[in-house]
Amino acid sequence: MSPFVDSLNRARDRTNSLVCVGLDPDVDRFPEHLKSGNDAVFEFNRSIIEHTSDLVSAYKLNIAFFEVMGARGYEVLERTLTVIPEEVVVICDCKRGDMGNSARMYAKALFEHFGFDAVTVNPYQGRDSVQPFLNYTDRGVFILCLTSNESSRDFQHLSVNGHPLYIEVASAAESWNTARNAGLVVGATQAESLAEIRAVSPDMPLLIPGIGAQGGDLETVIRAGADTSGGGLLINSSRSILYSSGGLDFAECARAATLRLRAEINTLLP
Amino acid sequence: MSPFVDSLNRARDRTNSLVCVGLDPDVDRFPEHLKSGNDAVFEFNRSIIEHTSDLVSAYKLNIAFFEVMGARGYEVLERTLTVIPEEVVVICDCKRGDMGNSARMYAKALFEHFGFDAVTVNPYQGRDSVQPFLNYTDRGVFILCLTSNESSRDFQHLSVNGHPLYIEVASAAESWNTARNAGLVVGATQAESLAEIRAVSPDMPLLIPGIGAQGGDLETVIRAGADTSGGGLLINSSRSILYSSGGLDFAECARAATLRLRAEINTLLP
Repeated sequence: MSPFVDSLNRARDRTNSLVCVGLDPDVDRFPEHLKSGNDAVFEFNRSIIEHTSDLVSAYKLNIAFFEVMGARGYEVLERTLTVIPEEVVVICDCKRGDMGNSARMYAKALFEHFGFDAVTVNPYQGRDSVQPFLNYTDRGVFILCLTSNESSRDFQHLSVNGHPLYIEVASAAESWNTARNAGLVVGATQAESLAEIRAVSPDMPLLIPGIGAQGGDLETVIRAGADTSGGGLLINSSRSILYSSGGLDFAECARAATLRLRAEINTLLP
Repeated sequence: MSPFVDSLNRARDRTNSLVCVGLDPDVDRFPEHLKSGNDAVFEFNRSIIEHTSDLVSAYKLNIAFFEVMGARGYEVLERTLTVIPEEVVVICDCKRGDMGNSARMYAKALFEHFGFDAVTVNPYQGRDSVQPFLNYTDRGVFILCLTSNESSRDFQHLSVNGHPLYIEVASAAESWNTARNAGLVVGATQAESLAEIRAVSPDMPLLIPGIGAQGGDLETVIRAGADTSGGGLLINSSRSILYSSGGLDFAECARAATLRLRAEINTLLP
């Protein structure tokens, strides 16, 4: 077992949870009492983390919501990372995809400077764009396979070599995965394709966004996506947890929503 | 003509140049006298800009080389942007690709906060991942079509609907381009495919990296890629310009290399 898969399993065993909370801090959706603060995004993140870190295998930080504040947003990102407990897996949802020296720089930035445990990457440029990330064999690399948006049909579902492009990507990822530190991103709204992806990648960790606000079906996801041990999944929820209350009790409500999602998942597991 | 295409044409007419200089500031390749400075990357960028801005249509800033420094790198990026003359087109080479709210946040970050004139985006997630960028109709959106790396063969060359995936992408981009602010990224090492892409996208601006260090052939690029007016191209060079000298004269040598490339391109134009 690779160090990355091992860290996922340990996080799951410790928390009895396949939940990944997506930290997408959107100031417009913050409770009123936080909105006016000087350091609202950091305070929001810290509260959410304090109230949920014993219930989740992972956090997924969506870089877009930090980048929108420019350099200051990346500074808030750096500070947010310092308040996440060591044992929680921290995924950078940045969907990086570049080649050669640029890919090496991104990998160095995200794994060495920021210290993320895992990243999401885009496969469009092929193996040599992903390899610099995979070379960090103690970290995880979730490769976009099939995304939860409507327009995923534009290219990902096109037929190549007798199967959809997303199967070609899954199968390529499997062949690149010599250090067993690759995973796939598969949107929960695409649950009907999950079994097909699992058949190609029987033991690759799957990061599943799209539960909750985007309407993915949890039962289908778990039935089709769980690996033979009943794990191998991280089920991400962002908005449904972060913004379950718009009041002073937002963090307590986020905790309650995380508890509910954890229980719901565990009931459905084989 | 769209405001973006118009700004490209004005930049070309003003400088008589299709050159785009890629600002990939790699401290390891800096001249010795700069390496030790507190603000080496900014000083390097400023010198390069001061010595080349009258000779280029555009700068392309590769975010990887800033991100490697973390939040501080984004702060250097912000200051670098303030020293680029208004009339030069400034492209953010960030290859963003995400959906929904995340894509909107990225577009807001790059166009509103940083104020870039154009960005590069990844098409893998389809139209709704690109649309939030295209919605800024006065800015440009260069969609990755066919990249210059070896592994572009992994997916971009696969046959879909009777043609390679990159043609499907070019043709989709053409159909999304209702505000005429989309362009394509096509690697110079793929010059043999350029004519085919031009046939699908006869007047879309092409951003062409891969000249110089990566070995793309300039003559083939221009013959196959120029539009009917002899323009419609931005030919990017990064390392061959930035690091043409490792001494005190690095900026003067960058200017000389830019002048040579401009002349070489202009000789080849129809």
